[in-house]
Amino acid sequence: MRLRNVKNAKEILNNSDYYINSTKYPKGIWNNLFKNDNPIMLEIGMGKGDFLIGMAKKHPEYNFIGVEKYESVLAKAIEKLDALELDNVKVIQIDAKELDTALDHEINSIYLNFSDPWPKTRHHKRRLTHETFLQVYDKIFKSDARIVMKTDNDSLFEDSLVNLSTYGYILDEVILDLWACNKENIRTEYETKFGSKGFKIKYLSAHKKIDEHEKI
Amino acid sequence: MRLRNVKNAKEILNNSDYYINSTKYPKGIWNNLFKNDNPIMLEIGMGKGDFLIGMAKKHPEYNFIGVEKYESVLAKAIEKLDALELDNVKVIQIDAKELDTALDHEINSIYLNFSDPWPKTRHHKRRLTHETFLQVYDKIFKSDARIVMKTDNDSLFEDSLVNLSTYGYILDEVILDLWACNKENIRTEYETKFGSKGFKIKYLSAHKKIDEHEKI
Repeated sequence: MRLRNVKNAKEILNNSDYYINSTKYPKGIWNNLFKNDNPIMLEIGMGKGDFLIGMAKKHPEYNFIGVEKYESVLAKAIEKLDALELDNVKVIQIDAKELDTALDHEINSIYLNFSDPWPKTRHHKRRLTHETFLQVYDKIFKSDARIVMKTDNDSLFEDSLVNLSTYGYILDEVILDLWACNKENIRTEYETKFGSKGFKIKYLSAHKKIDEHEKI
Repeated sequence: MRLRNVKNAKEILNNSDYYINSTKYPKGIWNNLFKNDNPIMLEIGMGKGDFLIGMAKKHPEYNFIGVEKYESVLAKAIEKLDALELDNVKVIQIDAKELDTALDHEINSIYLNFSDPWPKTRHHKRRLTHETFLQVYDKIFKSDARIVMKTDNDSLFEDSLVNLSTYGYILDEVILDLWACNKENIRTEYETKFGSKGFKIKYLSAHKKIDEHEKI
């Protein structure tokens, strides 16, 4: 998600207890930060945070880490978070392809909500379900990998089903019109906007065992 | 596909060179019947045969077996076939769950076109991608299993993606709107009718290795 520049974004980040500078916090001990052993869920591309906040409120039994690449977007999310008292949420600013520098086999599930579809064929390798990213995720998942994805983009969805399957993920659930079924669903800002315009929201959930030899 | 009764259906079947009585023809030697070693493709639920005939014309390098449960439907397809000279097509009348009584590790690909979606949850086990059918297919596939499916039914498509993945199939291609892309596509009678009404045609292709121990 892109957003116009927020001038004091860095200040907003550094002044918030929700923000963790992932280049300074050591990887592998994120549960210490949450002061419990609850599973940690990760949302990559959290945008302005509606999904992350909604999930954290609804599921106090889980911890949530929000990931956002753009400082200005993250600042907007932090402004929302700062008005709340949630002890099961942290956010970091990092590129998805470098997640293994911040996390080490400690994530339970990854949520990919309305990720950039990168429509041009030559850019498909930038999609967050491309093999190069799946390899990074292997290094941050605990024992069982689980990816949950929502998108309104057909091409990204088709491609993700094939990529995940080819990489060894097994599909647990596929829904072609999420809003038409009564599944529990926390909507993102983007989803609310485009779902209301009639775009069908696609959903998938997939899992994979992480081999022991991958846990090096 | 259901169709009003065709009175002389049995006679039409027995008088056609395209029809093979699978209870009499020994399994495992279907290539002998085609007098070549070309791969054999199977369409389960061939209906009136437009897809099977179109594929057979387009791909003389493959053999095709059409499977239809209903005698009256098969008779309609045979009337079309009898007007043509195709040496790479045979049709059989059999229930899909009994295919292993007629075929033995000799099929290259299975086509499932607009199979009955069995919308009620308690009937989902009757869907042609349910595990009980996938187990039967294991016994008729040669070395690599390949299933190619088209449907306009969301629930059947979603369920099939999950069933195939869970059973060990790897997705090679998923298309949510087949008519919107320029993929080679032989349309079935049903597809022509409902695609023209605006129903989106979904497509998937998936493969699986057949384990040696399954080849008993």
